[in-house]
Amino acid sequence: MSKLLAVGTVAFDAIETPFGKTDKILGGSGTFVGLAASQFGVQTGVVSVVGGDFPQSYLDMMNKKGIDTTGVEIVKEGKTFFWSGKYHNDMNSRDTLVTELNVLEHFQPIVPSSFKDAEIVMLGNLHPLTQAAVLDQMDKQPKLVVLDTMNFWMDIALNDLHEVLKRVDVITINDEEARQLSGEYSLVNAAKKIHEMGPKYVVIKKGEHGALLFNEGNMFYAPALPLAEVFDPTGAGDTFAGGFCGYLAKTGDISFENMKSAIIFGSNLASFCVEKFGTQRMEELTKDEVQIRLQSFKDLTQFDIKIS
Amino acid sequence: MSKLLAVGTVAFDAIETPFGKTDKILGGSGTFVGLAASQFGVQTGVVSVVGGDFPQSYLDMMNKKGIDTTGVEIVKEGKTFFWSGKYHNDMNSRDTLVTELNVLEHFQPIVPSSFKDAEIVMLGNLHPLTQAAVLDQMDKQPKLVVLDTMNFWMDIALNDLHEVLKRVDVITINDEEARQLSGEYSLVNAAKKIHEMGPKYVVIKKGEHGALLFNEGNMFYAPALPLAEVFDPTGAGDTFAGGFCGYLAKTGDISFENMKSAIIFGSNLASFCVEKFGTQRMEELTKDEVQIRLQSFKDLTQFDIKIS
Repeated sequence: MSKLLAVGTVAFDAIETPFGKTDKILGGSGTFVGLAASQFGVQTGVVSVVGGDFPQSYLDMMNKKGIDTTGVEIVKEGKTFFWSGKYHNDMNSRDTLVTELNVLEHFQPIVPSSFKDAEIVMLGNLHPLTQAAVLDQMDKQPKLVVLDTMNFWMDIALNDLHEVLKRVDVITINDEEARQLSGEYSLVNAAKKIHEMGPKYVVIKKGEHGALLFNEGNMFYAPALPLAEVFDPTGAGDTFAGGFCGYLAKTGDISFENMKSAIIFGSNLASFCVEKFGTQRMEELTKDEVQIRLQSFKDLTQFDIKIS
Repeated sequence: MSKLLAVGTVAFDAIETPFGKTDKILGGSGTFVGLAASQFGVQTGVVSVVGGDFPQSYLDMMNKKGIDTTGVEIVKEGKTFFWSGKYHNDMNSRDTLVTELNVLEHFQPIVPSSFKDAEIVMLGNLHPLTQAAVLDQMDKQPKLVVLDTMNFWMDIALNDLHEVLKRVDVITINDEEARQLSGEYSLVNAAKKIHEMGPKYVVIKKGEHGALLFNEGNMFYAPALPLAEVFDPTGAGDTFAGGFCGYLAKTGDISFENMKSAIIFGSNLASFCVEKFGTQRMEELTKDEVQIRLQSFKDLTQFDIKIS
């Protein structure tokens, strides 16, 4: 079993969907990654920052799940990062209503000494310089560095992004962002170009259309489980990434074959995440439920054709 | 082995893509279905209509592939159905430039006596009354009736469509059309509603995002093979349907388990169809190429996770 270090946001979200709306609830990429990874019982540390307004009970919940929050700095006089968004009827697009960076604006990540030897590092969707600052603090180059990013950083910090990508093994990115970063429409060609930027493995997230894993001519595809109802998509991408990293950390095997299983586990966990608002479903999720749904993934994708 | 009867268009297409453009070339849903089914060596009859301008050489090519064209009526004084379209850069959307119905306008399908006992019938995307007229001519209810349709018929002939759907086992439809027909956004719920309209099996085609097969609570998903280059998507959906029907006809097994293999074969053949303009790639396709690419589909989708 490997140690997993995740840097990302720990935040407040206020979400509106066709099914209802929430007040400020727990959110953030670091939170979702941590909760997903906690399913595998791996030692997970989250590096983030919150304000004095952040409830201790949220941290307690994370700790109870086995998530080490030593690296979550609390800026007493500051306010926690807050995002508010409204999903459209199709749940595939959303409007951001509010983004208050607050304590995130001057965030300098500090890796706790107990996680400087983490074998797997997940760099959540933050400024590329913040992501690089985490790698700088590691005792040595981790066994596997996974990076998530978005179009925003390509727009305002493309050079910094290119720099950090050279130090990254796996990038997770959505299809539109992959096209923007590579200048290629075909995802096969996009993955090839991004591969040349550094990451040996390129994971392209296509939301309800699943995810593709590329590695030097190899491809693997994990569908999203078709659901009767998507209640709240917030955090699904981070849960996917957390499941991916968590499974790799648990097994300690970063081969392409094992990454196949890892993205199935990621997709599996993401399918739960969207069933309730915020982190609620992930907080109550049991190992049995995960196993049962894995069988659904098998039924959905496995076939028996003999090649002659 | 079962006999396959397909009704659909045999037509001229003129296609423009970012890679080039064609003059009038061979096209039509009946043509693509027939060519796909010919890969399985099943006895396939096509019911359609062409004008006096339709080259005998095209029919000769189809016959050489084992496609029975007795049911392709030739209206000497008429002109063949002609469609012209231009694909956008992303290849996922297109503009129709020209649609000349010509002989298709008054098309009355005539099922050759040698195919009135066909076990599998593929009703290509035509007016629902034309589709029903084919079923009316069968000696008895076929073992499996597969129907393809589109939003156009929902707009102008919804009642007729509902009538013919009661006589259909499998519907193939794209995601937007499934949503329109059912009034449900979630494809799981859409499939359930369409199921209640008649078809026990609902195949939802998602283009580059693959296809889903639904049957009374069972789901199966076949991805589209990610390709570096999609040269011309014309006919991919019909090739998919033809591969699906052809495989079922060859095996004579219409169980859900076997339909899983059938949609993988359909998706496999469609991945070739888009590699060249029109029918070109399907005309030259060899069984070896098909087998090799089936292995790519296995590599793309099969994983090894033990359920505990």
